[in-house]
Amino acid sequence: MQALKLSRAFTLIEPGPVVLVTTHDGHQPNIMTISWTMVVDFTPVFAITTGSWNHSFSALQKQRECVLAIPAIDMLDTVVGIGTCSGADTDKFATFGLSAVPGKKVKAPLIRECLANIECRVADIVKAHNIVILEGVAAHIDPSRNERRLIHAVGDGTFTADGRHRFDRQRMMATKLPAGL
Amino acid sequence: MQALKLSRAFTLIEPGPVVLVTTHDGHQPNIMTISWTMVVDFTPVFAITTGSWNHSFSALQKQRECVLAIPAIDMLDTVVGIGTCSGADTDKFATFGLSAVPGKKVKAPLIRECLANIECRVADIVKAHNIVILEGVAAHIDPSRNERRLIHAVGDGTFTADGRHRFDRQRMMATKLPAGL
Repeated sequence: MQALKLSRAFTLIEPGPVVLVTTHDGHQPNIMTISWTMVVDFTPVFAITTGSWNHSFSALQKQRECVLAIPAIDMLDTVVGIGTCSGADTDKFATFGLSAVPGKKVKAPLIRECLANIECRVADIVKAHNIVILEGVAAHIDPSRNERRLIHAVGDGTFTADGRHRFDRQRMMATKLPAGL
Repeated sequence: MQALKLSRAFTLIEPGPVVLVTTHDGHQPNIMTISWTMVVDFTPVFAITTGSWNHSFSALQKQRECVLAIPAIDMLDTVVGIGTCSGADTDKFATFGLSAVPGKKVKAPLIRECLANIECRVADIVKAHNIVILEGVAAHIDPSRNERRLIHAVGDGTFTADGRHRFDRQRMMATKLPAGL
């Protein structure tokens, strides 16, 4: 994992991928699968929808930290597996053979097998809508990973991956792109 | 456009596509391009990030209605074009040759060229975070459209489309899927 400029971290969430969210409750780490995420600001700020139905929520609420880990399509069965069991009775790092790597700013671990990881602090919890606002504080990317296509959940149990072609509209969008990319 | 079950409407947003948001300010319709969206509930409820920097925001705030229109990759240049001009001085339906079709429940128009359209009412505006909470009230899909791959914005002026393969994990996820799909 290499450091990624924080000003580029939003480009990992803006495409709308499925993400893994790691937390640490003070005793042990946990992971949940989430596809309800959104960029809120380039700085970066993110929103995720979660609540007490996720075992990770109490750690998120108490420790006010997490990592958004971005898996690629070769991790699909891991991602679905993590999303269909609970940290209440499962050590997900051990069960799914994932490597917890210490982050720089938060106690929640990075996942080494993922394409990228964004360390976050909880900035706010909008209880009325089960929305947690996260401020990204450090970001990491694996530049040597071969499979880089993100996973997109349809929501009905099917998934797509990014197509292999990258459509470049940077010139058309020049006036709209944030500084620091 | 055919009616789509409201219980399936979240499956249009969960994959994280770029969306077009139509509004009607009482005098004329407008369109904005947004990639900062999130599902908040299956019922469906959606969140989008927007604010006074978007011309459409005042119509959204006053009329408390909009349509989330889902374009496919063959509309990429239209989507980028809409995102790089303003409704303050541009009739976007005319400029981009799009057809405004009346919806069933809201005055904001559907876009006939899109793959799908979700009529929404504004349920709340979380001003502290520029998040608008939308309740889907009707949904429509074009079953005969050939190109159905969604657009994903990376955020740096490049885009991907859904890959052509659909990965089916419905059996693994059976216990987690909402009723009514």
